[in-house]
Formats: sequence, C-alpha cells, structure tokens
Amino acid sequence: MRFELTILGSSSALPTSERNLTAHVLNVYERFFLIDCGEGTQMQLRRTRIKFGRINHIFISHIHGDHIYGLFGLLSSLNLLDRSEDLHIYAHEPLRKGIRYIIRNYEGKFNYAIRFHPLDEEQQQKIYEDLRVEVYSFPLKHKIPSAGFLFLEKPRELNIRAGYVKKYDIPVSKIHEIKNGADYRTQQGEHIPNHRLTEPPYKQRSYAFCSDTAYWEDIVPYIQGADLLYHEATFADEHKDQAEYTLHSTAREAGRIARKAEVAKLIIGHFSARYKEEQITALVNEAREEFGETLPAHDGMVYSIEPYRRDHH
Amino acid sequence: MRFELTILGSSSALPTSERNLTAHVLNVYERFFLIDCGEGTQMQLRRTRIKFGRINHIFISHIHGDHIYGLFGLLSSLNLLDRSEDLHIYAHEPLRKGIRYIIRNYEGKFNYAIRFHPLDEEQQQKIYEDLRVEVYSFPLKHKIPSAGFLFLEKPRELNIRAGYVKKYDIPVSKIHEIKNGADYRTQQGEHIPNHRLTEPPYKQRSYAFCSDTAYWEDIVPYIQGADLLYHEATFADEHKDQAEYTLHSTAREAGRIARKAEVAKLIIGHFSARYKEEQITALVNEAREEFGETLPAHDGMVYSIEPYRRDHH
Repeated sequence: MRFELTILGSSSALPTSERNLTAHVLNVYERFFLIDCGEGTQMQLRRTRIKFGRINHIFISHIHGDHIYGLFGLLSSLNLLDRSEDLHIYAHEPLRKGIRYIIRNYEGKFNYAIRFHPLDEEQQQKIYEDLRVEVYSFPLKHKIPSAGFLFLEKPRELNIRAGYVKKYDIPVSKIHEIKNGADYRTQQGEHIPNHRLTEPPYKQRSYAFCSDTAYWEDIVPYIQGADLLYHEATFADEHKDQAEYTLHSTAREAGRIARKAEVAKLIIGHFSARYKEEQITALVNEAREEFGETLPAHDGMVYSIEPYRRDHH
Repeated sequence: MRFELTILGSSSALPTSERNLTAHVLNVYERFFLIDCGEGTQMQLRRTRIKFGRINHIFISHIHGDHIYGLFGLLSSLNLLDRSEDLHIYAHEPLRKGIRYIIRNYEGKFNYAIRFHPLDEEQQQKIYEDLRVEVYSFPLKHKIPSAGFLFLEKPRELNIRAGYVKKYDIPVSKIHEIKNGADYRTQQGEHIPNHRLTEPPYKQRSYAFCSDTAYWEDIVPYIQGADLLYHEATFADEHKDQAEYTLHSTAREAGRIARKAEVAKLIIGHFSARYKEEQITALVNEAREEFGETLPAHDGMVYSIEPYRRDHH
C-alpha cells in the first residue's frame, strides 16, 4: 500500500557535487513511475536500489536537456538488461523524434517497444489509469511547453472491521456488498447498519509535480488538496527578476501556490547551482513565510504518504 | 609540471552504484584533456573538483552510448557557464551530426563554437599538439570504429645544475644554448663540458588509453613503453567467450598487451556490471599473471606520473 516519493535529483540546469539533475520516482503499490529523467538518473536508481525493470512508465515534464539527457542511457540499459515489456513514455511530441534519432544512430534495434504518448499542451488530461492510480497532466508556464503531473490514488472500498465477519457469520458472498456500503441482516434477523460493520476507506492519496514553471495560479485547481506538492523553487527573493526572466519560480512563490492549493506538504527543489548548500535554508524560510509545511528536496530523499482514513460522516 | 590521470568512470555499458560510465581526465601542466564522456561525466567533474572551463579538448574513443551520453549535458552546461572559447572534439565522423542534432533540437544557439575533428579509422594519426604535449589516435578493434589515444609529453630542455650559473658567472644570453647541449667557456678560458653543467632532461611521460577493444596486438607499437596504460578488461577468464563475441578484452589479455608493450604501469577498468566489487580482485589477479604492475580502476582514482630523469649517457 505504499505511496512513496524518492527524489533522485534536485538541481536545476547545472548539477552540483551534491545535487543531480531532475528525476523523481513515485512508488504506488510497487508500481514505479519515473518523472523526468535528467542525466545520471540510471546511476541514481542504482544508488537508491530501485530496480530498472520495475519502471514501466516515464513522464517527462518538458524537453529541456536537464530533464531528458538521462533518458538515452536508461533506455539503452533497459535493452542491455533484456527488457521485453513495452515501455511507456509520456512527453511532448517533439521528443518522439529525438528518441528515435538516438536509438537509430547509436543503439540499433531494441528488444522492447517504446510506446510514446504525446501530452496535451493546452489542457488537463488523464494520461494513465490502472487499478490503483490515475495520472493527469496539466499545463505549466515555461519557455517551452511544460507539463505538471498529478498522481491520484483511486478510491478504495470500505474495510470490514476485524472480527465482524466471524462474529456475525457473514457469508463471503455478502462481503463485496458490505464493502460497498450495504447494511447486513443476520440469520437471526438482526439489522446491522453498515457504519458499525465497516471502517471508512483510506483517503485517496495524491502527489503533484510542478517543474519547470513560472509562478502561475492557473495550476491551483489541478493540484488542490494534494497530500504532497513538489514545486520548483529555482531562485531566492533576491533573484526574483531572474525568475521572471527565465520563467522559473522563487521559493516564496512555490510556498504561495502551496498555500492557495491547500496542499498538506510542500517540497521545494530545482535549486539554482548558485546557492551553496547552506543557503538552501534561506530559500526554505522564504517559502515557509507563505506556507509552513515546506521541506527542501535533497537527492536520495524519500517521502512516504501513509494511508489515512477520512473522518466517518 | 603535472601529468596526472583522474578516472571519472570505470564501468562498462551498465553503471553500478559504485562505478560510473567511462570518462577520464588527463591533466598535463594544468591543461585538462577529457577522454570519453559517458553519462554522468559532468557530475563526476563536480565531485572531483575539476573545473569545466579548463577543458578545451574532448577525445571520444567510439560512438557507443556509454562513452558519449554525458556529452550533451556537458556541452549544455558549458554554454550555461558562459563559455566563449572554442571547444575541440575529436571523434569519429558520425558524432558530428549527432551533436548538431541535439543542439539544434534541445539547446538552441551556443555562445561558443564546437570544432569537430574527425578521427582516422584506418591508421595512427597525430591529432593534437601544443608546447607541452602531442596526442595520437590509433585504431582499436571493436564492433564499430574505435580509437585508442596516446598522450606524449614533449621533450624538454636540459636543466642547468643549481648554482652553476652563479659559480661560472654564465650570462643569460648563453643559457638557452647550454640547455640545448652546448659546452661553456668561462671568461678565464676554462672549458666546461655540457654534462658537468646540466642535468639530463625529464623523460617524456606518456599515457595510453585503450577502450573499447578486443585483444589486439597490432596496438602494441603505438603504446610501446608508455608510463601508464589504461586497457579495458571487461571480462574475467571464465567469460572469455563473451569477450570474443562482444569484441572486448579479458583482464588477462589486458595484462598481456601491457607486457608486450613494456609499459611501466597498467590500469584495468571498464568492468562488466556482473562482477561485484569483491570479484574485481580476481580480474586484477588474472591480469597480474601476465603483468605484475597492474592496478584496478575505481571512480575518483588519481594516478600521477612524476617527472623522472633518464640516465646520463
């Protein structure tokens, strides 16, 4: 039942000795979703002991080098590791051609197929769904088309309280109904209302990834109430003009988005290499003036969202 | 007067948590020559504190992904760092187009020019020369055209023995002649033979890089007597058939080349990811049965060749 983010790289365009280029892995029930694939992603997967073979879906926010140059090596390694299952890549259309170019010129034929899914530049779109999770893309604001992603756990059934199946001798045939909200009548005719039999389901957990982007309130509805938001915070207040010019965000702006979207927790990252590690605290403090629940990203960071229940109504 | 190798990556096609993909830096008198540029090279440069801006020449052995996928990110970072000087790349012709493709599609215009120098696939060739060093390429034997590189320090002048300029009152105008072998006649008419005035020059130091390649004795003349040879050793004896099939070398074969070429020291690397760190010792031992002076490469390894004098004849 894991819903767990691992940050592989938290630098902006220039890596530092401490920070690799952008890549995240979200583990949803042991499905591993890779988000962005900056240079060095495969080495960071090795270091964090995430098996390459578990990754079936790669989401690319935008086609800037620092978010994609790890893709070619990873695709090559998957082939060397005898992958045979399809690999799905969700990215803006122009990357399709680039991947094809690299493979044709430097790799040769792969043992597995790449399924390319172009992202909509203009509007929110459901791009993936399975039994456990839905993934949405939505437009950010950057120099080139850039997408945010929302990973939303699917609603789960009610849980029957431990011991009640035995206590009331509930037949297996009724369990599905009860989990979906039905009351139960015992063989003795006693009516047991559903809320006594069941516990509320876990809340749908969610993770929103927003990088690269300028400060842009239009994204708020897409990420409203997320359990965890990663928002880029390339610059400190003192370089606000740089942020505006390059269509990046300041840490304070990331905090403001988190506050407006009423998320539970904010992680900021994609820090400019100009800031030394000891200066990152200043960025966090600027974000916290807007939104207290802010953490700085670091490479190898793991953030787990535990299952939690809604209050019973 | 440094002549110093730093190994940034020592893995073969698949990186491990300990080993990055192939890249070496040779520091010759504070000129930094980059040899191969596997994914992660720029991060490894950060970790080893080698300034990107000091690299003006990049030598690429062959166009397999694990030797080139760090190039795109490095070129991009050099641009972000406001490089303006030309950057020289020495590689087989097809890479020229690939670099152009990536820059055009994902980078836009660079502030600096890339000068591409195609390598000769067929024969030894002097590809670079400055006041301190000459660089030669020569063909290796691999699935695609692959080149070895020899870095050869230029011969230096004789050194005048400390104190002799003062003792014999040698005028500055004569010093250049003496350093080039002339005897000296003092104002009192005494004849001082050159060998009393001077010490022999330092021997020309040399570094040979041979990766990727099958065992191939044809390379021996090109690397004869090198102070340091890096030779790939992808496989152990037990996988000799794999080495033959993939046109790579075993550690033992690397040792045999070192012995035949009478080099002073051998470093083996480019180890298959199938070998765990504790198994590398076995590869080293196999190489040492052919050539005692063998060391295993590891990422971050620095090997300095100190200046040393020839015997006076």
